Amino acid sequence: MAGNTFGDIFKITTFGESHGAAVGVIVDGVTPGVELDEAYIQKQMDRRKPGQSSVTTSRKEYDTIHILSGVFEGRTTGTPLFVMLHNQDMRPSAYDDIQHAFRPGHADYTYLHKYGIRDHRGSGRASGRETAARVAGGAVARKLLERRGVQVVAYTKQIGPIACGTFDESVIEQNAVRACDPEAAEAMIRHIEELAAVGDSSGGIVECRIRGVMPGLGEPAFDKLDAELAKAMLSIGAVKGIEFGAGFAAATMQGSEHNDGMNRDGFLSNHAGGILGGISTGQEIVFRIAVKPTSSISLPQQTMNVHGDEQTIQTFGRHDPCICPRIVPVVEAMACLVLEDHYKRQAAMLNE
Amino acid sequence: MAGNTFGDIFKITTFGESHGAAVGVIVDGVTPGVELDEAYIQKQMDRRKPGQSSVTTSRKEYDTIHILSGVFEGRTTGTPLFVMLHNQDMRPSAYDDIQHAFRPGHADYTYLHKYGIRDHRGSGRASGRETAARVAGGAVARKLLERRGVQVVAYTKQIGPIACGTFDESVIEQNAVRACDPEAAEAMIRHIEELAAVGDSSGGIVECRIRGVMPGLGEPAFDKLDAELAKAMLSIGAVKGIEFGAGFAAATMQGSEHNDGMNRDGFLSNHAGGILGGISTGQEIVFRIAVKPTSSISLPQQTMNVHGDEQTIQTFGRHDPCICPRIVPVVEAMACLVLEDHYKRQAAMLNE
Amino acid sequence: MAGNTFGDIFKITTFGESHGAAVGVIVDGVTPGVELDEAYIQKQMDRRKPGQSSVTTSRKEYDTIHILSGVFEGRTTGTPLFVMLHNQDMRPSAYDDIQHAFRPGHADYTYLHKYGIRDHRGSGRASGRETAARVAGGAVARKLLERRGVQVVAYTKQIGPIACGTFDESVIEQNAVRACDPEAAEAMIRHIEELAAVGDSSGGIVECRIRGVMPGLGEPAFDKLDAELAKAMLSIGAVKGIEFGAGFAAATMQGSEHNDGMNRDGFLSNHAGGILGGISTGQEIVFRIAVKPTSSISLPQQTMNVHGDEQTIQTFGRHDPCICPRIVPVVEAMACLVLEDHYKRQAAMLNE
Amino acid sequence: MAGNTFGDIFKITTFGESHGAAVGVIVDGVTPGVELDEAYIQKQMDRRKPGQSSVTTSRKEYDTIHILSGVFEGRTTGTPLFVMLHNQDMRPSAYDDIQHAFRPGHADYTYLHKYGIRDHRGSGRASGRETAARVAGGAVARKLLERRGVQVVAYTKQIGPIACGTFDESVIEQNAVRACDPEAAEAMIRHIEELAAVGDSSGGIVECRIRGVMPGLGEPAFDKLDAELAKAMLSIGAVKGIEFGAGFAAATMQGSEHNDGMNRDGFLSNHAGGILGGISTGQEIVFRIAVKPTSSISLPQQTMNVHGDEQTIQTFGRHDPCICPRIVPVVEAMACLVLEDHYKRQAAMLNE
Repeated sequence: MAGNTFGDIFKITTFGESHGAAVGVIVDGVTPGVELDEAYIQKQMDRRKPGQSSVTTSRKEYDTIHILSGVFEGRTTGTPLFVMLHNQDMRPSAYDDIQHAFRPGHADYTYLHKYGIRDHRGSGRASGRETAARVAGGAVARKLLERRGVQVVAYTKQIGPIACGTFDESVIEQNAVRACDPEAAEAMIRHIEELAAVGDSSGGIVECRIRGVMPGLGEPAFDKLDAELAKAMLSIGAVKGIEFGAGFAAATMQGSEHNDGMNRDGFLSNHAGGILGGISTGQEIVFRIAVKPTSSISLPQQTMNVHGDEQTIQTFGRHDPCICPRIVPVVEAMACLVLEDHYKRQAAMLNE
Repeated sequence: MAGNTFGDIFKITTFGESHGAAVGVIVDGVTPGVELDEAYIQKQMDRRKPGQSSVTTSRKEYDTIHILSGVFEGRTTGTPLFVMLHNQDMRPSAYDDIQHAFRPGHADYTYLHKYGIRDHRGSGRASGRETAARVAGGAVARKLLERRGVQVVAYTKQIGPIACGTFDESVIEQNAVRACDPEAAEAMIRHIEELAAVGDSSGGIVECRIRGVMPGLGEPAFDKLDAELAKAMLSIGAVKGIEFGAGFAAATMQGSEHNDGMNRDGFLSNHAGGILGGISTGQEIVFRIAVKPTSSISLPQQTMNVHGDEQTIQTFGRHDPCICPRIVPVVEAMACLVLEDHYKRQAAMLNE
Repeated sequence: MAGNTFGDIFKITTFGESHGAAVGVIVDGVTPGVELDEAYIQKQMDRRKPGQSSVTTSRKEYDTIHILSGVFEGRTTGTPLFVMLHNQDMRPSAYDDIQHAFRPGHADYTYLHKYGIRDHRGSGRASGRETAARVAGGAVARKLLERRGVQVVAYTKQIGPIACGTFDESVIEQNAVRACDPEAAEAMIRHIEELAAVGDSSGGIVECRIRGVMPGLGEPAFDKLDAELAKAMLSIGAVKGIEFGAGFAAATMQGSEHNDGMNRDGFLSNHAGGILGGISTGQEIVFRIAVKPTSSISLPQQTMNVHGDEQTIQTFGRHDPCICPRIVPVVEAMACLVLEDHYKRQAAMLNE
Repeated sequence: MAGNTFGDIFKITTFGESHGAAVGVIVDGVTPGVELDEAYIQKQMDRRKPGQSSVTTSRKEYDTIHILSGVFEGRTTGTPLFVMLHNQDMRPSAYDDIQHAFRPGHADYTYLHKYGIRDHRGSGRASGRETAARVAGGAVARKLLERRGVQVVAYTKQIGPIACGTFDESVIEQNAVRACDPEAAEAMIRHIEELAAVGDSSGGIVECRIRGVMPGLGEPAFDKLDAELAKAMLSIGAVKGIEFGAGFAAATMQGSEHNDGMNRDGFLSNHAGGILGGISTGQEIVFRIAVKPTSSISLPQQTMNVHGDEQTIQTFGRHDPCICPRIVPVVEAMACLVLEDHYKRQAAMLNE
């Protein structure tokens, strides 16, 4: 109930804070006999880790993962797969002067109200560090989905006012912001650098496309495939919204426009985003998420502290001025977790 | 796993299709000793039922509920509370001519792929009829939340191109579209009537505000309060997106703008929508959902049938030309279910 | 969390009390496309219903079941299957004189402490009536297991001091106590009649054998097949113990005796009861449960009432002097639920 | 679904095999602000560890635990508490000659059928090593229960033919077999030593008493307190049965004997074992479990190997000739987990 487990049949349980000794994940429900090694997971971890470019934080995180159970002689055993990462770059002293203040946009205030006590070193469990465990778990799901022919790719669609005008999948991992349009990428980088120079940050939009999903995946009532993806995405800190297919644009559309007709070859359009009635159509699944500007900025902000005193705060940490590029692998990881779980749910239902 | 249960501690399990004998809900985890009668639940059912105005379907649904267990001498017993509604206006013959066609925008195609068989009378489990059971269950949650001082109110914010310019809560239940702006409401009604006249339908946006929630509600990792609300809302058919607080507008905002500062009296703004790090701030919780235009329209549409033949389809049923007004009580019901569940989860964690 | 749902993938959620309007069960996770009708379920209900012989209660329960959703044109749809039974023989007045007393052996005292309020008409949710919903749900599982070639048979092994000396499966449903030894059955019936005549009741032992289960079923840690069966059986009121294979006799055995050796043709013995390390061996699964004597007896008993006054109580209802014969179909139903769920769990894990 | 999580609100998820790199447990749903340190958990680990006497295995396990998250400055934070133990005494070569044989009484055969692959070094996930993670998690529950005034104590009641004749709680931790009768303890030790000398092993019975539980704990239908305890106990390898209160003796009792009457001061007896209708009475909760003789014996046994060849096997490892003394802390740990979970479930239900 404390919500540190995600998934029903294929599921992960995570632990770890920004400044504790380690973060880790138990992946349960893994298909046995599948080839898997640390390098495969590490590759995904490396995409998430900070310090990759001028537009991400210079903080070093030693995201070297270790598989401590669930793999034997290079193959999964079907028993719980445990992956751990040690935290090595703990600099709690950097937080000393702000340890009693509620940082605007952070979960400091809400954590204190929830738990009564708070680890003031960084953001505790609300830290982006927690997503490392998700990416590790998601990598296991990705491996299983690869064998099913499913591909999950996310990318930056917009940063501040700059939106991608074209879609070129081959450039995504080639630019520092993981945008799908190389020209927009350059403008985005300049925009972020300008904001970073004045101590500010930017929001953005990340889009995800999933291909190769069989039709018929998802449950019809509460566990609709889009409902589960929505929960998965909104569970990532900084995500403030999600839309599928036409999304919010559907508000101004008419049924005759929005409905996706069919002919012998399949659907004629994809306003639905690949999901009808909560169940996959077999088309590309498409959704976008709204990412808020990074809360940690070095501009002075008005806030309060735990003693009830008003104060001005400036957070001079090493923070990402825009979180979109680093949220991309997290989005993919969560999508992979949802999909593999639903494949197994479907298999269970049909089994006889 | 088949996803017909919602909630963790306070939870509902529903059954029923559009053309079966009945729909119903088992509400489990109800606080014992609470005054509750059928009239209280019926009031919410009546808000959802069709046939209330010119802008909703003329189809009659006999939404008279019966509590068959879990209430004794006017008080909840703490054991499962079962509420049932009989389906009485079944006209399956109306569907005879389209029984083999995949209706555009409907779940016909995806259900057939999921289950291998399909109840062709209406939409089966994907029917809006299924939401009647949600509203019944949500009414029980609403009763418990009332005692906590929590208020949940949803309303139509936009239909097609017409958006509310003002917010007047007192008018919501006074106009046929449940808009929060009486002038916009009139324009919306005209817009819907025009579309209905030509056999088309409209999308829209519904907004929800929740007041009186204590700070500290929600779980920090996967079961964030916004993540759970997102799942709840996307689990309603026709909902294609959700955003909290500033939502997608956050994409073009900067941290200095989006961050909600504080002073001695609390937060200075609410761009976050009342949730930080997945946990309530004690402010008003605000979110909006994108509602697609009703799929059932009487304009001819191109589609395919189960035999692989192309055909043109026209669905002359009695359908809502815009689902927003009737989705409002469903949104409220789902929000109530999420909130009461999280109150109980918080109580469990703190208990010692 | 309130514990009215059983199973993980194939699962049932039940409601209903002894003296409410109805009892019912939602079966979720049903394989679609399977032939199923009311008669199949009714047959199991009839085995459980009271009033079948001199050794069971003369109370009439109208256990006529109705499938209200989840079956279409004689086949399961894969959506929630709902089965309901109306309660028709309510005689709450029979309980008037004991409504404030805590009946020895009953859950009156514990329910009052748990909920703060109590439905004094009969045993509320703790009534044997609640098992009717289990048998209905279990019948659906039984149907699915039949297609897998799995057979579940339970029977009375012992009543009071009289134990079966032989095992003849063909006689079980031919005698009023459902014993596997016809001679013992006669002695058991006489024993029960003698006790009934003086207003007393008897305990007993019920044994269950499950055949045709594939090897490899069950989970290795907490959800061992025997652990789940144990929970299922102890969740039946009146059951006070369970043992698998050699069971408690293993306490006085040595490893060289208890270990089941193997040769080319399989296992040489079955002291384990068909389960090793929580996982089925493919042998017959064998377990026994201890059934306490019926709590409702008409002999005077010393007790207390809700006001703290001591009183003598005699419960002149229509009660079973020994519950074994009627617990047999409940044991089978619960075993079927556990097995079908684990088949589906295994399928989910292996799916790729 | 893969069953490596136990509990609903207060829950543990474990990983680890006998011969992997580590075993560990994530404890979720922990009350925040509670004083807890590694020494408290270590104390319970030390009770479980092997090599404590002549009657337990001489194998050394380095059960030094580390808390890697969830505790900050000596207090629980409410976020996932992670405890890990490294495996340091791996001697896989000891298993080389038996790696392809199915050891009688072990899960070798069933694991291979379940997963298709098998870690032949020791028993993998079916190893007693897995219980180390349970004891660590159970220690956290024990700490919370201490604050509630609940005491859980288990002890050896019988080994082979030797049963305790008296109950003296003070001697339990003073003798090598953890028996409650010092004279019986001496006889038990001699019995075990004799069996060990000839390469054989012994079964036994362990009893558990729980005091200080409030009346009203447990759920009425499937999650009865005794049903959950039964699952918890049967989930421990080597446990083949459980009985509450009078248990199997109830089979030969009459209602007039078995029913526990009441007077003004409470119950007059405790045949029910402290649970009525699945809910605690406030009396002592008493249950016994049947423990099978250790499967690993050095006497020659007939078996088969993975290639289908018959062979004779002798397992000359360092094994416990009777597992009762070391199962005692595992029984207590599992009981603590069930109880703390049910306290939190009760709090959730009553919360308003």
